[in-house]
Amino acid sequence: MIIIGIDPGIAIVGFGVIEYKGNHFRVISHGAVTTSAGESLPTRLEIIYNSLTELLEKYRPDAMAIEELFFNKNTKTAFMVAQARGVAILAASLAKLDIYEYTPLQVKQGVVGYGRADKKQMQTMVKTILNLEKVPKPDDVADALAVAVCHAHSGVFGSMFKIK
Amino acid sequence: MIIIGIDPGIAIVGFGVIEYKGNHFRVISHGAVTTSAGESLPTRLEIIYNSLTELLEKYRPDAMAIEELFFNKNTKTAFMVAQARGVAILAASLAKLDIYEYTPLQVKQGVVGYGRADKKQMQTMVKTILNLEKVPKPDDVADALAVAVCHAHSGVFGSMFKIK
Repeated sequence: MIIIGIDPGIAIVGFGVIEYKGNHFRVISHGAVTTSAGESLPTRLEIIYNSLTELLEKYRPDAMAIEELFFNKNTKTAFMVAQARGVAILAASLAKLDIYEYTPLQVKQGVVGYGRADKKQMQTMVKTILNLEKVPKPDDVADALAVAVCHAHSGVFGSMFKIK
Repeated sequence: MIIIGIDPGIAIVGFGVIEYKGNHFRVISHGAVTTSAGESLPTRLEIIYNSLTELLEKYRPDAMAIEELFFNKNTKTAFMVAQARGVAILAASLAKLDIYEYTPLQVKQGVVGYGRADKKQMQTMVKTILNLEKVPKPDDVADALAVAVCHAHSGVFGSMFKIK
Protein backbone atom coordinates (compact mmCIF):
# COMPACT_ATOMS: atom_id res chain seq x y z
CA MET A 1 0.00 0.00 0.00
CA ILE A 2 1.28 3.46 -0.90
CA ILE A 3 0.32 6.24 1.49
CA ILE A 4 0.84 9.97 1.12
CA GLY A 5 0.98 11.82 4.43
CA ILE A 6 0.18 15.53 4.42
CA ASP A 7 0.87 18.21 7.00
CA PRO A 8 -1.30 21.05 5.71
CA GLY A 9 -0.28 24.69 5.76
CA ILE A 10 -0.43 27.79 3.61
CA ALA A 11 3.32 28.60 3.50
CA ILE A 12 4.56 25.01 3.81
CA VAL A 13 2.71 21.81 2.98
CA GLY A 14 4.80 18.86 4.16
CA PHE A 15 4.37 15.62 2.26
CA GLY A 16 5.73 12.12 2.62
CA VAL A 17 5.04 9.23 0.28
CA ILE A 18 5.72 5.82 1.77
CA GLU A 19 5.14 2.22 0.81
CA TYR A 20 4.03 -0.20 3.52
CA LYS A 21 4.26 -3.86 2.59
CA GLY A 22 4.56 -6.90 4.82
CA ASN A 23 5.31 -4.79 7.87
CA HIS A 24 8.14 -2.99 6.04
CA PHE A 25 8.33 0.68 5.24
CA ARG A 26 9.98 2.30 2.26
CA VAL A 27 10.14 6.04 1.74
CA ILE A 28 9.34 6.85 -1.86
CA SER A 29 9.48 10.64 -1.67
CA HIS A 30 9.28 13.39 0.87
CA GLY A 31 9.51 17.15 0.82
CA ALA A 32 7.48 20.32 1.05
CA VAL A 33 5.39 22.46 -1.25
CA THR A 34 6.15 26.05 -0.32
CA THR A 35 4.41 29.29 -1.19
CA SER A 36 5.58 32.83 -0.57
CA ALA A 37 3.76 35.35 1.61
CA GLY A 38 4.27 37.78 -1.28
CA GLU A 39 1.78 35.80 -3.37
CA SER A 40 -1.98 36.25 -3.08
CA LEU A 41 -4.10 33.63 -1.31
CA PRO A 42 -5.62 32.43 -4.60
CA THR A 43 -2.17 31.96 -6.14
CA ARG A 44 -0.92 30.11 -3.06
CA LEU A 45 -3.93 27.79 -3.10
CA GLU A 46 -3.38 27.19 -6.80
CA ILE A 47 0.30 26.31 -6.23
CA ILE A 48 -0.65 23.87 -3.47
CA TYR A 49 -3.38 22.27 -5.56
CA ASN A 50 -1.26 21.93 -8.69
CA SER A 51 1.78 20.61 -6.83
CA LEU A 52 -0.21 18.02 -4.89
CA THR A 53 -2.08 16.94 -8.02
CA GLU A 54 1.28 16.42 -9.72
CA LEU A 55 2.56 14.35 -6.78
CA LEU A 56 -0.58 12.21 -6.80
CA GLU A 57 -0.23 11.60 -10.52
CA LYS A 58 3.42 10.72 -10.14
CA TYR A 59 3.25 8.37 -7.16
CA ARG A 60 -0.37 7.16 -7.41
CA PRO A 61 -0.83 6.51 -3.68
CA ASP A 62 -3.79 4.44 -2.48
CA ALA A 63 -4.59 6.68 0.45
CA MET A 64 -3.97 10.13 1.87
CA ALA A 65 -3.47 10.60 5.60
CA ILE A 66 -3.79 14.20 6.79
CA GLU A 67 -3.55 15.89 10.14
CA GLU A 68 -6.73 17.12 11.69
CA LEU A 69 -6.92 20.86 12.10
CA PHE A 70 -5.23 22.08 15.19
CA PHE A 71 -7.44 24.56 17.05
CA ASN A 72 -4.80 27.06 18.07
CA LYS A 73 -5.17 30.56 19.37
CA ASN A 74 -4.34 32.36 16.17
CA THR A 75 -7.64 31.99 14.38
CA LYS A 76 -6.42 33.94 11.34
CA THR A 77 -3.54 31.51 10.77
CA ALA A 78 -5.82 28.55 11.46
CA PHE A 79 -8.25 29.78 8.80
CA MET A 80 -5.43 30.09 6.27
CA VAL A 81 -4.36 26.52 7.05
CA ALA A 82 -7.98 25.36 6.80
CA GLN A 83 -8.34 26.85 3.33
CA ALA A 84 -5.15 25.09 2.23
CA ARG A 85 -6.35 21.85 3.81
CA GLY A 86 -9.59 22.07 1.85
CA VAL A 87 -7.60 22.33 -1.36
CA ALA A 88 -5.36 19.38 -0.41
CA ILE A 89 -8.37 17.21 0.37
CA LEU A 90 -10.00 18.27 -2.90
CA ALA A 91 -6.89 17.23 -4.87
CA ALA A 92 -6.94 13.80 -3.21
CA SER A 93 -10.68 13.38 -3.66
CA LEU A 94 -10.53 14.26 -7.36
CA ALA A 95 -7.69 11.71 -7.68
CA LYS A 96 -10.04 9.09 -6.12
CA LEU A 97 -7.89 8.44 -3.04
CA ASP A 98 -9.31 7.27 0.25
CA ILE A 99 -8.67 10.03 2.76
CA TYR A 100 -8.01 9.56 6.46
CA GLU A 101 -7.43 12.08 9.20
CA TYR A 102 -5.70 11.83 12.56
CA THR A 103 -5.35 14.19 15.47
CA PRO A 104 -1.83 15.04 16.70
CA LEU A 105 -2.56 12.75 19.67
CA GLN A 106 -3.47 9.86 17.40
CA VAL A 107 -0.34 10.42 15.33
CA LYS A 108 1.83 10.24 18.44
CA GLN A 109 0.06 7.11 19.60
CA GLY A 110 0.31 5.58 16.14
CA VAL A 111 4.00 6.36 15.68
CA VAL A 112 5.63 6.38 19.10
CA GLY A 113 3.08 4.28 20.92
CA TYR A 114 1.99 6.83 23.45
CA GLY A 115 0.20 10.16 23.07
CA ARG A 116 2.38 12.23 25.32
CA ALA A 117 5.54 11.83 23.25
CA ASP A 118 7.28 15.11 22.49
CA LYS A 119 8.19 16.38 19.03
CA LYS A 120 11.79 15.19 19.26
CA GLN A 121 10.82 11.67 20.29
CA MET A 122 8.37 11.46 17.44
CA GLN A 123 10.89 12.70 14.89
CA THR A 124 13.48 10.21 16.09
CA MET A 125 10.93 7.43 15.82
CA VAL A 126 9.98 8.49 12.27
CA LYS A 127 13.66 8.46 11.30
CA THR A 128 14.16 5.01 12.82
CA ILE A 129 11.00 3.39 11.47
CA LEU A 130 11.63 4.75 7.97
CA ASN A 131 15.35 4.00 8.09
CA LEU A 132 16.30 7.59 7.24
CA GLU A 133 19.82 8.92 7.82
CA LYS A 134 18.54 11.98 9.62
CA VAL A 135 15.33 13.64 10.73
CA PRO A 136 13.74 15.25 7.66
CA LYS A 137 13.55 19.03 7.70
CA PRO A 138 11.55 21.20 8.04
CA ASP A 139 9.32 19.81 10.79
CA ASP A 140 6.37 19.80 8.39
CA VAL A 141 8.04 17.03 6.36
CA ALA A 142 8.67 14.90 9.44
CA ASP A 143 5.07 15.49 10.52
CA ALA A 144 3.78 14.43 7.10
CA LEU A 145 5.82 11.21 7.24
CA ALA A 146 4.55 10.67 10.79
CA VAL A 147 0.89 10.84 9.80
CA ALA A 148 1.58 8.43 6.93
CA VAL A 149 3.27 5.98 9.34
CA CYS A 150 0.37 6.45 11.76
CA HIS A 151 -2.08 5.48 9.03
CA ALA A 152 -0.08 2.37 8.12
CA HIS A 153 0.01 1.30 11.76
CA SER A 154 -3.67 2.10 12.20
CA GLY A 155 -4.44 -0.27 9.35
CA VAL A 156 -2.64 -3.04 11.18
CA PHE A 157 -4.50 -2.32 14.39
CA GLY A 158 -7.83 -1.75 12.66
CA SER A 159 -8.15 1.79 13.96
CA MET A 160 -8.10 3.78 10.75
CA PHE A 161 -10.01 7.04 10.77
CA LYS A 162 -11.65 7.63 7.45
CA ILE A 163 -12.47 11.27 7.12
CA LYS A 164 -16.16 12.09 7.62
CA MET B 1 -18.65 43.64 -16.01
CA ILE B 2 -19.97 40.30 -14.83
CA ILE B 3 -19.48 39.53 -11.15
CA ILE B 4 -20.09 36.31 -9.26
CA GLY B 5 -20.76 36.81 -5.57
CA ILE B 6 -20.13 33.88 -3.26
CA ASP B 7 -21.30 33.24 0.29
CA PRO B 8 -19.08 30.31 1.26
CA GLY B 9 -20.27 27.38 3.36
CA ILE B 10 -19.98 23.62 3.52
CA ALA B 11 -23.70 22.73 3.44
CA ILE B 12 -24.80 25.73 1.35
CA VAL B 13 -22.71 27.89 -0.96
CA GLY B 14 -24.80 30.85 -2.08
CA PHE B 15 -24.01 32.34 -5.47
CA GLY B 16 -25.22 35.29 -7.46
CA VAL B 17 -24.10 36.21 -10.95
CA ILE B 18 -24.83 39.80 -11.90
CA GLU B 19 -23.98 42.14 -14.72
CA TYR B 20 -23.14 45.74 -13.89
CA LYS B 21 -23.08 48.09 -16.85
CA GLY B 22 -23.52 51.85 -16.96
CA ASN B 23 -24.80 51.94 -13.38
CA HIS B 24 -27.42 49.28 -14.14
CA PHE B 25 -27.65 45.87 -12.60
CA ARG B 26 -28.96 42.72 -14.19
CA VAL B 27 -29.23 39.40 -12.38
CA ILE B 28 -27.97 36.62 -14.65
CA SER B 29 -28.31 33.71 -12.24
CA HIS B 30 -28.58 33.03 -8.55
CA GLY B 31 -28.94 30.00 -6.37
CA ALA B 32 -27.13 27.70 -4.02
CA VAL B 33 -24.85 24.71 -4.27
CA THR B 34 -25.87 22.36 -1.49
CA THR B 35 -24.19 19.32 0.01
CA SER B 36 -25.58 16.81 2.45
CA ALA B 37 -24.19 16.18 5.93
CA GLY B 38 -24.40 12.50 5.02
CA GLU B 39 -21.57 12.94 2.53
CA SER B 40 -17.90 12.93 3.53
CA LEU B 41 -15.94 16.17 3.64
CA PRO B 42 -13.91 15.23 0.52
CA THR B 43 -17.12 14.54 -1.43
CA ARG B 44 -18.68 17.79 -0.26
CA LEU B 45 -15.59 19.76 -1.29
CA GLU B 46 -15.61 18.01 -4.65
CA ILE B 47 -19.30 18.86 -5.21
CA ILE B 48 -18.62 22.51 -4.36
CA TYR B 49 -15.56 22.68 -6.61
CA ASN B 50 -17.22 20.98 -9.57
CA SER B 51 -20.43 23.00 -9.29
CA LEU B 52 -18.60 26.33 -9.05
CA THR B 53 -16.27 25.41 -11.91
CA GLU B 54 -19.35 24.66 -14.01
CA LEU B 55 -20.92 28.01 -13.10
CA LEU B 56 -17.71 29.85 -13.97
CA GLU B 57 -17.52 28.09 -17.34
CA LYS B 58 -21.17 28.85 -18.06
CA TYR B 59 -21.29 32.51 -17.09
CA ARG B 60 -17.62 33.50 -17.51
CA PRO B 61 -17.64 36.27 -14.89
CA ASP B 62 -14.78 38.80 -14.80
CA ALA B 63 -14.48 38.78 -11.03
CA MET B 64 -15.44 36.86 -7.95
CA ALA B 65 -16.46 38.69 -4.78
CA ILE B 66 -16.48 36.54 -1.67
CA GLU B 67 -17.24 37.17 1.98
CA GLU B 68 -14.36 37.27 4.39
CA LEU B 69 -14.39 34.55 6.97
CA PHE B 70 -16.51 35.35 9.93
CA PHE B 71 -14.67 34.60 13.17
CA ASN B 72 -17.53 33.09 15.11
CA LYS B 73 -17.54 31.08 18.27
CA ASN B 74 -18.02 27.68 16.72
CA THR B 75 -14.49 27.03 15.50
CA LYS B 76 -15.36 23.62 14.13
CA THR B 77 -18.03 25.08 11.84
CA ALA B 78 -15.74 27.96 10.91
CA PHE B 79 -13.02 25.50 9.87
CA MET B 80 -15.48 23.62 7.70
CA VAL B 81 -16.49 26.88 6.02
CA ALA B 82 -12.80 27.82 5.61
CA GLN B 83 -12.06 24.56 3.81
CA ALA B 84 -14.99 25.17 1.47
CA ARG B 85 -13.87 28.75 0.94
CA GLY B 86 -10.40 27.55 -0.05
CA VAL B 87 -11.95 25.34 -2.69
CA ALA B 88 -14.18 28.17 -4.00
CA ILE B 89 -11.19 30.50 -4.29
CA LEU B 90 -9.19 27.77 -6.01
CA ALA B 91 -11.95 27.27 -8.60
CA ALA B 92 -11.96 31.02 -9.34
CA SER B 93 -8.18 31.25 -9.45
CA LEU B 94 -7.88 28.33 -11.87
CA ALA B 95 -10.53 30.04 -14.02
CA LYS B 96 -8.33 33.18 -14.04
CA LEU B 97 -10.82 35.45 -12.31
CA ASP B 98 -9.82 38.41 -10.21
CA ILE B 99 -10.92 37.68 -6.66
CA TYR B 100 -12.06 40.23 -4.11
CA GLU B 101 -13.12 39.84 -0.51
CA TYR B 102 -15.28 41.96 1.75
CA THR B 103 -16.13 41.81 5.41
CA PRO B 104 -19.81 41.72 6.42
CA LEU B 105 -19.39 45.36 7.50
CA GLN B 106 -18.05 46.36 4.09
CA VAL B 107 -20.89 44.52 2.37
CA LYS B 108 -23.45 46.42 4.43
CA GLN B 109 -21.72 49.70 3.71
CA GLY B 110 -21.42 48.87 0.02
CA VAL B 111 -25.04 47.79 -0.38
CA VAL B 112 -27.14 49.75 2.10
CA GLY B 113 -24.74 52.65 2.64
CA TYR B 114 -24.13 52.13 6.32
CA GLY B 115 -22.46 49.33 8.24
CA ARG B 116 -25.03 48.91 10.96
CA ALA B 117 -27.84 47.87 8.68
CA ASP B 118 -29.62 44.72 9.79
CA LYS B 119 -30.11 41.60 7.68
CA LYS B 120 -33.65 42.52 6.69
CA GLN B 121 -32.66 46.00 5.51
CA MET B 122 -29.84 44.56 3.46
CA GLN B 123 -32.04 41.92 1.86
CA THR B 124 -34.66 44.53 0.97
CA MET B 125 -31.96 46.69 -0.56
CA VAL B 126 -30.60 43.77 -2.60
CA LYS B 127 -34.12 43.04 -3.88
CA THR B 128 -34.66 46.69 -4.81
CA ILE B 129 -31.27 47.31 -6.44
CA LEU B 130 -31.48 44.10 -8.45
CA ASN B 131 -35.14 44.59 -9.32
CA LEU B 132 -36.14 41.18 -7.97
CA GLU B 133 -39.75 40.32 -7.18
CA LYS B 134 -38.86 39.00 -3.76
CA VAL B 135 -35.93 38.48 -1.45
CA PRO B 136 -34.01 35.43 -2.68
CA LYS B 137 -34.00 32.43 -0.34
CA PRO B 138 -32.14 30.98 1.49
CA ASP B 139 -30.25 33.86 3.12
CA ASP B 140 -27.01 32.57 1.60
CA VAL B 141 -28.26 33.48 -1.87
CA ALA B 142 -29.21 37.00 -0.80
CA ASP B 143 -25.80 37.33 0.88
CA ALA B 144 -24.01 36.20 -2.27
CA LEU B 145 -25.91 38.75 -4.36
CA ALA B 146 -25.12 41.39 -1.73
CA VAL B 147 -21.36 40.82 -1.91
CA ALA B 148 -21.56 41.00 -5.71
CA VAL B 149 -23.43 44.33 -5.50
CA CYS B 150 -20.91 45.51 -2.91
CA HIS B 151 -18.07 44.78 -5.32
CA ALA B 152 -19.80 46.63 -8.18
CA HIS B 153 -20.34 49.67 -5.96
CA SER B 154 -16.79 49.45 -4.63
CA GLY B 155 -15.52 49.69 -8.18
CA VAL B 156 -17.43 52.93 -8.65
CA PHE B 157 -16.04 54.37 -5.44
CA GLY B 158 -12.53 53.01 -6.01
CA SER B 159 -12.58 50.98 -2.82
CA MET B 160 -12.26 47.47 -4.17
CA PHE B 161 -10.53 44.97 -1.94
CA LYS B 162 -8.49 42.56 -3.98
CA ILE B 163 -7.78 39.47 -1.96
CA LYS B 164 -4.24 39.29 -0.58
